Amino acid sequence: MLDNIKIFDTTLRDGEQTPGVLITSNEKLKIALKLDELGVDVIEAGSAITSKGEQKSIKTITENNLDAEICSFARPVKVDIDTALNCDVDSIHLVIPSSDLHIQYKLRKTREQVEQMTVNATEYAKSHGLIVELSTEDATRTSMDDLKRLYNLGIEAGADRLCACDTVGLLTPEKSYDFYKELATLSRPVSVHCHDDFGLAVANTLMALNAGAQQAHVTINGLGERAGNASCEEVVMALETLYHIDTGINTKLFYEISHLVETISGVTLQSNKAIVGENAFAHESGIHADGVLKKSETYEPIKPETVGHRRRFVLGKHVGKHVINEKIKETNTQVTEDELDRIFKRVKSLSDMGKTVTDVDLQTITDDILHINPEDSLILEEYTTVSGNKVTPTASVKVNINNKEKIEAGVGVGPVDAAIEAIQKSIKDTADITLEEYHVDAVTGGTDALIDVLVKLKHEDKVITARSTEPDVILASVEAYLKGVNKILTDDKKMRK
Amino acid sequence: MLDNIKIFDTTLRDGEQTPGVLITSNEKLKIALKLDELGVDVIEAGSAITSKGEQKSIKTITENNLDAEICSFARPVKVDIDTALNCDVDSIHLVIPSSDLHIQYKLRKTREQVEQMTVNATEYAKSHGLIVELSTEDATRTSMDDLKRLYNLGIEAGADRLCACDTVGLLTPEKSYDFYKELATLSRPVSVHCHDDFGLAVANTLMALNAGAQQAHVTINGLGERAGNASCEEVVMALETLYHIDTGINTKLFYEISHLVETISGVTLQSNKAIVGENAFAHESGIHADGVLKKSETYEPIKPETVGHRRRFVLGKHVGKHVINEKIKETNTQVTEDELDRIFKRVKSLSDMGKTVTDVDLQTITDDILHINPEDSLILEEYTTVSGNKVTPTASVKVNINNKEKIEAGVGVGPVDAAIEAIQKSIKDTADITLEEYHVDAVTGGTDALIDVLVKLKHEDKVITARSTEPDVILASVEAYLKGVNKILTDDKKMRK
Repeated sequence: MLDNIKIFDTTLRDGEQTPGVLITSNEKLKIALKLDELGVDVIEAGSAITSKGEQKSIKTITENNLDAEICSFARPVKVDIDTALNCDVDSIHLVIPSSDLHIQYKLRKTREQVEQMTVNATEYAKSHGLIVELSTEDATRTSMDDLKRLYNLGIEAGADRLCACDTVGLLTPEKSYDFYKELATLSRPVSVHCHDDFGLAVANTLMALNAGAQQAHVTINGLGERAGNASCEEVVMALETLYHIDTGINTKLFYEISHLVETISGVTLQSNKAIVGENAFAHESGIHADGVLKKSETYEPIKPETVGHRRRFVLGKHVGKHVINEKIKETNTQVTEDELDRIFKRVKSLSDMGKTVTDVDLQTITDDILHINPEDSLILEEYTTVSGNKVTPTASVKVNINNKEKIEAGVGVGPVDAAIEAIQKSIKDTADITLEEYHVDAVTGGTDALIDVLVKLKHEDKVITARSTEPDVILASVEAYLKGVNKILTDDKKMRK
Repeated sequence: MLDNIKIFDTTLRDGEQTPGVLITSNEKLKIALKLDELGVDVIEAGSAITSKGEQKSIKTITENNLDAEICSFARPVKVDIDTALNCDVDSIHLVIPSSDLHIQYKLRKTREQVEQMTVNATEYAKSHGLIVELSTEDATRTSMDDLKRLYNLGIEAGADRLCACDTVGLLTPEKSYDFYKELATLSRPVSVHCHDDFGLAVANTLMALNAGAQQAHVTINGLGERAGNASCEEVVMALETLYHIDTGINTKLFYEISHLVETISGVTLQSNKAIVGENAFAHESGIHADGVLKKSETYEPIKPETVGHRRRFVLGKHVGKHVINEKIKETNTQVTEDELDRIFKRVKSLSDMGKTVTDVDLQTITDDILHINPEDSLILEEYTTVSGNKVTPTASVKVNINNKEKIEAGVGVGPVDAAIEAIQKSIKDTADITLEEYHVDAVTGGTDALIDVLVKLKHEDKVITARSTEPDVILASVEAYLKGVNKILTDDKKMRK
C-alpha cells in the first residue's frame, strides 16, 4: 500500500466554496500555476456551470498547458458536462448524491433515477473524451451495497476513477480504514475526500490511503465548506515524514503557496496552523527554546526549511535566558550573567502584565539595566493630519533629528499614508529605511477600541519590528514607525563604535 | 473501553505557551471559571515556577474552590514542587524528559540521574499531599522498556496517574493506538497528550482513548506550542457524536468559551476551524444551502445549537436562488420567479468580480430589478477630520436627512471615533440606531492597502450589516456606517407601507 499516491487538489473548487471566499480568474490562474509547480497530479479548477466568470477562470487555466490534469466539478446532467467541455478540461469530477438522505430530501428522486442519471452522464462524458472520476456525495451515510452497485454501473459505463466523499466529516480513523478497504476491492482506483467537521480530515485521509485508496482530495490551508477539507500540506508532510513516502511534491513551496492562498482567499490562518502557520516553528518557552538552540530535533518534528518556513524565537513570559542572550548579542551588546538575570526578570514582569515584548522593548530594558541612556535620534515634535471626502488627505510633521529641526508635509490615499509619507521625507537624508510591512490587527468592538499597529522596517540587511497600541490609528501608526526608526539609528551608532 | 473518559484541560498552561500569548491573572480566572462550568475534570492552571505573576494567577484560581482539580506543571525539582504547593494546587503535572534525545542534548544527564530525580520528586510531592500525574516528555521517541521502567519507578514512589506526551506530534493514528494500548497495561490510569504538528492531534487522542487511555489532555481552540495541542471542542464533540460517549461536558458552552479564549489570547481562529469557527455552520454554495433548507442533516453533522453556535447563509458566487429568496422575503419584498432569476444573475456576476455580497448589495440589486428608486434618506454632503498629537481629534459633517441639511461636529479618541460621533449626532432625531459592532479586517501590506470596515447596526430588533472598502480608514468607516443607516431607514419606510 501507500505507493504511487496521487494528490488531487481542490483548493479552486471545494476551497473556493468556503463561505465568503471569492477568487477571480487572474487569481485562480496564479494559484493553479503555483499548484502545478508544487507538483499536484490533478487540479480541480472549479465547477464550470457556476457562472460565466467561472468558465473564464477554468478556460484560462486549461489554456496554460500545465503538467497537472485539469478537472471540473459536474453534476450528472448534460448542461454541466457541456459547460465543462467548453472549458477544455481533461476530466470531470462527476458527483452523485448517494445516501438515502440526500436522494430523498435534497434531490427528491428515486435511487433508480439517480443510477440512470449516473450511467447516462458517465457515458455522455466518456463519449466526449473526458476522464471521468465518479464520486459519491455523502458516501459514508450510504449502505455499502448501494454504493457498490452505483460504482459498478459507473464502471460499466466507462468511469476511470472512483471517489467516496465523507461529506459532513463523520468518519473516524478506524471507520475510514474499513470503509476505504472495502472500496479498494473495486476495479478502478479510489480517491478519498474528507471534511474536517471533527478535526479528523487529515487522519481519515491517511487511514484511507493506508487501506488502499490511491488518491487524496485536499486543499491548501484546509479551505472548504464549513470546517473545510483535508489540508494538502498536512496530508503530504505526514505521508513524507511519518510514513516515509515520496509523494513527488515539491514541499519547499508549501509556505509560499499557503501564504498566496491566504492572501487571495482572505481566510487568515490561525497562528498555530500545522506546517504553515506563523507559530508552526516558533518557540517561546524557556525549556523549548533552550532545547531547540541545543538541538532542533528536540522540539521540531521537521526542519522548517523542508516546507519553506523559518524558525522564530518569541519573547514572552515563558522565555528563557538563552534566547534573551541570543537576541542581545545580535545588537553587538555584551551583558554579564548578573545583568542578564536582571534583564530576564524585567522581560518576565512585563509579560506578566499581558504585554507582548518587542525588539524595542528588550532594547529599552537592556539600556536601562546597563545604564545606557541612548538619546532617541528622532523626536516627534508635532504632527497634524487633515482628511475628508472633499480634501486630499494631508499631514505635516515637525521632527528633531540629531538635534536638527525639520518640517515636512505629505499627502496620501488616507491620513495614515500621508503621515508616514511626511515622516519618511523628513528622515530620508539620515538613513535609508524602507517600510517592509505595515500590519494592523483586526479590530472588533467600538470605534474607540485599542488598535495595535506593528511595523517591520528594513535598513541594509536588518529587519526590525516595533509596535504601538492606541485608540487612534494614525497616532499608533506614527508611533510604531518612529520607535522602529529610533531602534535602527541606535543600533547603527553602536555598530560603528 | 471509552467509558468514564476524563478531560484534562491545559489551555492555561500548554495553551498559554503559544508563542506571543499572554494571559493575565484576571483573565486566567475568567477562563478557569468558564472551564469549570464547561465541566472539565482537571484544569492545569499554569506552571507555578514561571513567574510571580503566574503564582498569583494560580492562587487566584485555587482560592475559588472550583469543582475541577487544579493542577500545576512542575519539573522534577524541589523548587518547582514547593512553588506549586505555595499556590495550593490539588495536583502536579510532573514532566520528565524521557527520550535519549532529550536526556542527552537538553538535560545533559544520564538516564539513571533522571530516574532518580523522578523518584525523589514523586516521593516529595506525595509526602506533601499532592496528586501526582507523572508525565514523560517526548515519550513517543523513547523505547517502551525505558518508558515502562520509569513509570514503574514512579508508581512505586506513589504516582497516581501516568501521562505520555507526543511532544513533537510524531504519532499516526495506528501508532497511537498501539502505543497507548501497551501503556494501558500499567497499574495506573494513563493520559494521552498530543501535539498537532501534522494535523493529527485529535485523531491520535481518540485512538489512544480507544486503546485504553482514560484521560485526554486538550486545550480550547487547540492552542499550544508550535501547531498547538489537541482541541478540547473537537475531541469532546467527536467522542459525543462519533463514538456516542457521554463525556459529561456541557457542550453548549463551546462557542462561548472558544470566543472568550480567542479574545483573551489574541489567537484569531481560522474561519473554517472545526466546531467553533465562524464558518463551521455557514453555507454558501447553492447545493449545500438548498439541502440545509430542506433538511439540515444533509450538510450539517450536528445541530449548531449543540455547541452554542448558529447557522449562517452567505451570499456569494456559489449561492443558490433559495437563499436569495429567503433573504429578500425578510425585507417584506415579493419577487416573481423571473425577477428572482435576474437578481440571482446579478449577485453571481458581482461575486465573479471578487466582491463579497452584503445585505446592502442585495438590496441595491433588488431595488434596481424591481425599478424601485429608493432615495437614500441620509446623504453625506461633506466631512472633514483633523487630528494630531497636539490636537483633540475633531470631525465635522454636513448631511442631508430627508431633505433637511444638518451640520454637526464631534470629538473622539481618534478621528474615526470623532467622525462617527458627529454623524450619530446628526441622525439622533431621525432614528434610534446603535453601532453594535465595528470591525476592521486585519491589514497587512503597506499604508496604502485597502481597508475593509464592516459595521453592525441595530435599530429596534433588527441588525443590519454593511461594509465599505477604501484605502482611507476614516472614509471606509464613515461610508459603511452611512450605508447601514440608509438600509435601516429604507426598510423602515417599506414596513410602514
